[in-house]
Amino acid sequence: MRKKQRVSRAFYIIKSGKKGDYEFRGKFWIEGKDGTFLGVGRATLLQKIKEYGSISKAAKAMNMSYKRAWELVESINKQAKEPLVITHIGGKGGGGAKLTPEGERILKQFWEVYHKFEEFLKEEIKHFKF
Amino acid sequence: MRKKQRVSRAFYIIKSGKKGDYEFRGKFWIEGKDGTFLGVGRATLLQKIKEYGSISKAAKAMNMSYKRAWELVESINKQAKEPLVITHIGGKGGGGAKLTPEGERILKQFWEVYHKFEEFLKEEIKHFKF
Repeated sequence: MRKKQRVSRAFYIIKSGKKGDYEFRGKFWIEGKDGTFLGVGRATLLQKIKEYGSISKAAKAMNMSYKRAWELVESINKQAKEPLVITHIGGKGGGGAKLTPEGERILKQFWEVYHKFEEFLKEEIKHFKF
Repeated sequence: MRKKQRVSRAFYIIKSGKKGDYEFRGKFWIEGKDGTFLGVGRATLLQKIKEYGSISKAAKAMNMSYKRAWELVESINKQAKEPLVITHIGGKGGGGAKLTPEGERILKQFWEVYHKFEEFLKEEIKHFKF
């Protein structure tokens, strides 16, 4: 039986790749005025909302409850200078959600830092003498 | 009454400093074959052992139980290519501990990566457009 795919804590960890027995690992997030504003999990949720045009589909894709996804979106929107996600109700398919241009802009920058951090870890482990 | 100083989880977080309401934060550690080999907490323990010449004094300085400090030292030594900490028993003052040259070498490199990571976060938040 295949193990059910879950978004585990390991998912949020950024890794260098192994060198012998060792691997550099890290986490990265943006803290806002009410705690976490944007980390890897939240950025992935925004990414999925962008892809699916729906918070419930994005939540499902992340094995996350709809309630939890909503709470995260609210926390992100509340801490951003302007909303990163907007929702519309009703119509065919029962409403949806999408990123605002501000959301696209912030998300793009977040992934840039994420990838630079990954590069940083890869570079540092190369030079580390175990 | 002064609040008792404790080593909290926040202690292990590396920070960029604030820009408006926002701060970049991160964690960094080296994973070994049995889980964490060396992170900020373990590196600080090694640093304190180096300073105090004693695992029990180092543990006390970190508000950590002696048992916990021993376990961490054992985990570090077991995962390193050669021991990073050696202990000697008895004599005046009831024995002690110190870093091996290998311990000094690994610790020095760890703090170098730590400081580079801190610099990375400071640099990235500067360029991030919120």
